[in-house]
Amino acid sequence: MAKFIFSNVIGSFVFDDKGELVDGLLFKDLDQFREKSKFEEKLKQKHHDLETSKDNHLKSILSFFKNKKYYPQFYNKNLKITKNSIKESVNNDLLIIQTISGIEEIDKTINLLSKRLREWYSLYNPEISKKVDDHEKFVSLITRKSKKQLLKELNVDEKDSLGADLKEKDVSAILLLATQINNFYKLKKHYEEYLKELEKVACPNFATVAGPTIAGKLINHAGSMRRLVEMPASTIQILGAEKALFRHMRNKRRNLPPKFGLIHEHQLIQKSKDKMQGKAARALADKLSIAIKIDYFKGKFIGDKLKKELMEKLNIQY
Amino acid sequence: MAKFIFSNVIGSFVFDDKGELVDGLLFKDLDQFREKSKFEEKLKQKHHDLETSKDNHLKSILSFFKNKKYYPQFYNKNLKITKNSIKESVNNDLLIIQTISGIEEIDKTINLLSKRLREWYSLYNPEISKKVDDHEKFVSLITRKSKKQLLKELNVDEKDSLGADLKEKDVSAILLLATQINNFYKLKKHYEEYLKELEKVACPNFATVAGPTIAGKLINHAGSMRRLVEMPASTIQILGAEKALFRHMRNKRRNLPPKFGLIHEHQLIQKSKDKMQGKAARALADKLSIAIKIDYFKGKFIGDKLKKELMEKLNIQY
Repeated sequence: MAKFIFSNVIGSFVFDDKGELVDGLLFKDLDQFREKSKFEEKLKQKHHDLETSKDNHLKSILSFFKNKKYYPQFYNKNLKITKNSIKESVNNDLLIIQTISGIEEIDKTINLLSKRLREWYSLYNPEISKKVDDHEKFVSLITRKSKKQLLKELNVDEKDSLGADLKEKDVSAILLLATQINNFYKLKKHYEEYLKELEKVACPNFATVAGPTIAGKLINHAGSMRRLVEMPASTIQILGAEKALFRHMRNKRRNLPPKFGLIHEHQLIQKSKDKMQGKAARALADKLSIAIKIDYFKGKFIGDKLKKELMEKLNIQY
Repeated sequence: MAKFIFSNVIGSFVFDDKGELVDGLLFKDLDQFREKSKFEEKLKQKHHDLETSKDNHLKSILSFFKNKKYYPQFYNKNLKITKNSIKESVNNDLLIIQTISGIEEIDKTINLLSKRLREWYSLYNPEISKKVDDHEKFVSLITRKSKKQLLKELNVDEKDSLGADLKEKDVSAILLLATQINNFYKLKKHYEEYLKELEKVACPNFATVAGPTIAGKLINHAGSMRRLVEMPASTIQILGAEKALFRHMRNKRRNLPPKFGLIHEHQLIQKSKDKMQGKAARALADKLSIAIKIDYFKGKFIGDKLKKELMEKLNIQY
């Protein structure tokens, strides 16, 4: 009489050709389920001439498990498997996406609060805000130096300053905001370093060619590395310029197609002359498309080579 | 021969009736200009029978100062006066406006970053984010307690958690953001206290009736205390609901006029029943209109009395 072996999430079982249970080993946890071949091996040693269950027997075997007493076991095992898959679905992609989104939101925050700080601080000392355009420099200056020092450096007599003589309490309220903004600049730098480390593991080639920030933005915009891999280079080229693309598609005559999206900030494009930017974007997107594929399929690191080829092609020196 | 006295920003002068300069005292700085009556007194003691210059003499006196040699003096003195007025125009109004705007922007920031934090942290420990809706509580919980502790408190077996087992480096990157958000909550509280202090000086009655935050928002929206004073109570009532008001004015049949604007958040209105909210808003705006006028014209503090009357009228107990 032929006997058949059959495994599911509950265990490994041996059935005879009438669909009756002969023997079986239950899995205690997910690890045992993962190593089900070991259990099948054990059963095979015990029962000789075991065959793998075929289509015509499967039906009777499956109806065997329709018994309600197995339901809770199926439910619990499947729940555990699902939970485990969710757990394991968290990969570097997701961390990269969260980190780059965090950086973008910190940027927004810094901008919003710096504008407020300038307006507020200008009641006290308007001269310095006009002189220093860079937010980061401005924040660091006013937290490190007093109004007196700052005016002296600008060669402005304290009496000629248009700023009000605020009380110490009022000034310290303003400087608290400046300190917070300063902390945000530090946090941003930390996240940029962290992002680099994540990318060194997940997509070294891609990050080398694109630069860490643009690499993160592209992965974030695409949703995952996998989706980037599936995109043609021309899509990577205009990723992030969807608005301009659809504007072009609605009205081709008036609106030219976009030359680049997120990669616009890349130094290769920034350093190209206006007329060459389209070509540079195309070449960059080509290399990016190659790089992400190498990374996704765990190829070797040739990022430096790709970057060098690109620069030679575009005749650009760093 | 009659002599006339005349003062301008440069100094106090004595002219004869032909418009010739007889005597004069120059002001060295703005303080002397402010006390010009003292200088005029000195001249009056020196020259008897001085008259104040009349219209028919003014013309010759004014043409006397048309001499170009006075131009730089006029320019410099006027520049100083203007700078000084700008300096002195910084008052508590402006500080209140900056502070409340700062608070509103911190609120926005906290919201933006908390959403990011929840998404990010949920890769690691999704169970806690679902349980704790309040951002502040959530942030403080995850910064104070480990994943193990939190899961234990929720009675979730660590093995059943859907969160990934992130590396320590990854977790600490997430918690850095949480720490920043926590700092923002502290800063917000500090600013709320500071706002109260500013209002205690600038508008104690108004702040008592409106509550510190709404008082700040109303002053911010109006632009200054002065503008609030000039508004009728009905305008104060719907300040901040301009969009709804104009929608009503464009199409009266479809859109009812707004019952309240910024004062909507006031507890007197929140505690009133729906049908009574319009009445409450009207009564509140009336009292606010009275309170801001008392404050602006430096009246006594009767904020508590106003508030009590309001509560009695609306039959509300705290």
